[in-house]
Amino acid sequence: MADEKNVVKEITPQAEDFSRWYIETITKADLMDYTPVRGCIVFKPDGFELWERIQEAMNKRFKETGHRNAYFPMLIPESFFQKEKEHVEGFNPELPWVTEAGGEPLEEKLALRPTSETIIGHMYSQWIQSYRDLPILINQWANVFRWEKRTMPFLRTSEFLWQEGHTAHATEAEAREETLRMLDIYAEVVEQELAIPVVKGQKTPSERFAGAVDTYSIESMMKDGKAVQTGTSHYLGQKFAKGFDIKYLDRDNQFKHVYTTSWGSSTRLIGSMIMVHGDDRGLALPPRMAPIQVIMIPVGPMKLREKVMEAFDPLYDTLKQADIRVKADLREETPGWKFNEWEMRGVPVRLEIGPRDVENGQVVLARRDTGEKLTVAIDGVVETITNLLSEIQHNMLQTARAFLAANSHLDIATLAELKSHIAKVEAEKGLAGWVLAGWCGDDACEAKVKEETKFTSRNIPFDPPAVKHTCITCGQEAKHTVWFGRAY
Amino acid sequence: MADEKNVVKEITPQAEDFSRWYIETITKADLMDYTPVRGCIVFKPDGFELWERIQEAMNKRFKETGHRNAYFPMLIPESFFQKEKEHVEGFNPELPWVTEAGGEPLEEKLALRPTSETIIGHMYSQWIQSYRDLPILINQWANVFRWEKRTMPFLRTSEFLWQEGHTAHATEAEAREETLRMLDIYAEVVEQELAIPVVKGQKTPSERFAGAVDTYSIESMMKDGKAVQTGTSHYLGQKFAKGFDIKYLDRDNQFKHVYTTSWGSSTRLIGSMIMVHGDDRGLALPPRMAPIQVIMIPVGPMKLREKVMEAFDPLYDTLKQADIRVKADLREETPGWKFNEWEMRGVPVRLEIGPRDVENGQVVLARRDTGEKLTVAIDGVVETITNLLSEIQHNMLQTARAFLAANSHLDIATLAELKSHIAKVEAEKGLAGWVLAGWCGDDACEAKVKEETKFTSRNIPFDPPAVKHTCITCGQEAKHTVWFGRAY
Repeated sequence: MADEKNVVKEITPQAEDFSRWYIETITKADLMDYTPVRGCIVFKPDGFELWERIQEAMNKRFKETGHRNAYFPMLIPESFFQKEKEHVEGFNPELPWVTEAGGEPLEEKLALRPTSETIIGHMYSQWIQSYRDLPILINQWANVFRWEKRTMPFLRTSEFLWQEGHTAHATEAEAREETLRMLDIYAEVVEQELAIPVVKGQKTPSERFAGAVDTYSIESMMKDGKAVQTGTSHYLGQKFAKGFDIKYLDRDNQFKHVYTTSWGSSTRLIGSMIMVHGDDRGLALPPRMAPIQVIMIPVGPMKLREKVMEAFDPLYDTLKQADIRVKADLREETPGWKFNEWEMRGVPVRLEIGPRDVENGQVVLARRDTGEKLTVAIDGVVETITNLLSEIQHNMLQTARAFLAANSHLDIATLAELKSHIAKVEAEKGLAGWVLAGWCGDDACEAKVKEETKFTSRNIPFDPPAVKHTCITCGQEAKHTVWFGRAY
Repeated sequence: MADEKNVVKEITPQAEDFSRWYIETITKADLMDYTPVRGCIVFKPDGFELWERIQEAMNKRFKETGHRNAYFPMLIPESFFQKEKEHVEGFNPELPWVTEAGGEPLEEKLALRPTSETIIGHMYSQWIQSYRDLPILINQWANVFRWEKRTMPFLRTSEFLWQEGHTAHATEAEAREETLRMLDIYAEVVEQELAIPVVKGQKTPSERFAGAVDTYSIESMMKDGKAVQTGTSHYLGQKFAKGFDIKYLDRDNQFKHVYTTSWGSSTRLIGSMIMVHGDDRGLALPPRMAPIQVIMIPVGPMKLREKVMEAFDPLYDTLKQADIRVKADLREETPGWKFNEWEMRGVPVRLEIGPRDVENGQVVLARRDTGEKLTVAIDGVVETITNLLSEIQHNMLQTARAFLAANSHLDIATLAELKSHIAKVEAEKGLAGWVLAGWCGDDACEAKVKEETKFTSRNIPFDPPAVKHTCITCGQEAKHTVWFGRAY
């Protein structure tokens, strides 16, 4: 039984060092690898398949709401960045530049896109002439580049994969409606498919996208109590429309600038899924996202294996035909070794079948989320498993919701209280979590929270669990109730 | 009726200037647009959707044959290109380079990938230790860069989209089998889904992929008689395995280099589909690839429109529910204008319904491929249309096959004959097509064909329609029977 424990032993417990747990888990589960290219990773097949499922879930909803995919050039001329002042200031420090090509220096250097508002804005200025051309609802799946100083696989890498939606509208009302519609779609995918609870809200001005009028986000809490922005949607007003001269002739025969939006979600979602659901045994994947939903393992003495396989093989076919993503592990390793291996890889349900099960017309199902074992009849096992997968999906979201609630602090009123809260949890090796606090609206007060606690404003929630009346920093009247927390 | 002709009128006839016809067609059909970035295009939604369908058709077959998708870094360190001598010589002149990032010059410049054998070879050298790790069967969907001097939308652009498969095997036999398996998959997708006939064969040494031992291709004939390589598969032997030291410990306890393959298909396929099926009325899309398979247009006087719509709306729903990709055109333009518009956009079937049709329980179906009009009963129209779409798919492939046969010349024995063939067709404004010719195997003889006629060897077909016994250039004994033609 010695090797049964090995798989687990090699992963550092979350409570000991969460970052090490994360890196060891994604490495052992074969989701990614480091590369010789600074800050760039390989998305290995088991990691990339998670992205393919996220893409599918997003694409379905984008198309249902009238969006279509397109593809714009990755290289963006330097002069394009100059056309929206805040945008260039925000992104310039992070850009990689192509300066030579085809054996010659370029006349104008070309940036590797960090986001595509500029090149898409330019194209929209060519495509839009009349109100009849509006709205334009386009999405792009692409690689993007931000030369980050500190990187972390999936969460922050020099090259990452994402989708970026870019829409243009005749009116402010329509553009604002679109901005919030897409935020809702992100919330739906992240909660229903990835089983990650989200807090919807508006970013404070200091955390706005470079060039946006208003930025909205969904924020999720990882198991170390830190936040990840799991999706973001921007109302850009007429800023890019003016920078790129995107105008249309309206019904009243006047030329008007359009209103634009952009919204994005990225391979960060893979990292978030792991940090929200994983535990000391490794990954735990929600059934809707899991590449393998059911791992089938024959058990019992080898001399009775043939008899077991007579029931095992047709059962495998039955599950496969029912579109359950099932895999059979028939390797020579011990059942115990396999149990640990597939738990570490996060498969939601393990199905065990041994000689006695065959005799009794039953199988054993083990849940990855609760560890519970159920003995169920082979008759009707498709329905049993289908229901169990739904139940696990639901339970994982509920568990994550409970965790978010337990680590959300609503009773911290001042910076001094926040600091003593942090000191206390650090002494106890607990989690600082998030803090709901009042804010007067002054950038300096927000900045002071960050300086003194490393907590940053996550967002101003649409639906706060309480309303705060005094600013956490200055004690003056609060204009907003804000979630603060440490963030990735 | 003046505007009915406009749509068609604006496209230059193919016989007058095929390149102009192509550019005008893809522009008018809204498949792409030019950009301010040298040699880069936008894949607009109608163009990108063709790519999404190609991706789906390929992905399905890749996964059925055990391949999985992954994603590797786009940036490749300069030193990596040096590790396979022929590879660097082949690609170096076309590379764009990142030389600065994050505000600083890079220590080692980074190429934008033209293909990923080098970075993937490096990763495989880390991942492969034992024979148990083999085979590795990975595919990647990605953007790639080749700084081409002359560009043509979809066919040759500085940035394009493709898939590249990269596999590693324990034995030469396995790797060679894989190389040909993937060539077969390309042939199947291109023929069955895109309705483009292909000629499978092996490339001559001068046309090999830089770093391959053997390169195979499928070649297709465009309507101007020129060739496009519609897919390519390479047996790389141990060249990259040695360059990147990809070794495994075999069952016999010896370290051995693996055998690798790579294979690719790209957004060229979009251009090929257009150039094979399009005509003077514009695009013609094979039903399996068409984003819209049936365009429904109400006809007859406006005062009877309400009555028509009572039959039209349920019919639309019926087709939609039967998973036929149907669109209703209810705009204010005349039916004639709409007919031309959707013909130009290549929709395979037009469904017209007017007051008399409603009375008679019938609709009119017009085929894009033959121009034929059929009056059919509304009862059973789903089955009628489903069968018609299959028939059109089949007919488009057959028509293209007949065109390929008609423009394949089997009776040209010498370079003098080839030159007089070319002179003759040029005088008649005909097509030079392809020529099946013998070749002694000498690079110089092949090069001379190119110099004097601009015909290049397409491939050495597996299944030639005839066997040629003398070299077209030197008249000596032929070692190979080769297709020659002008190529994109």
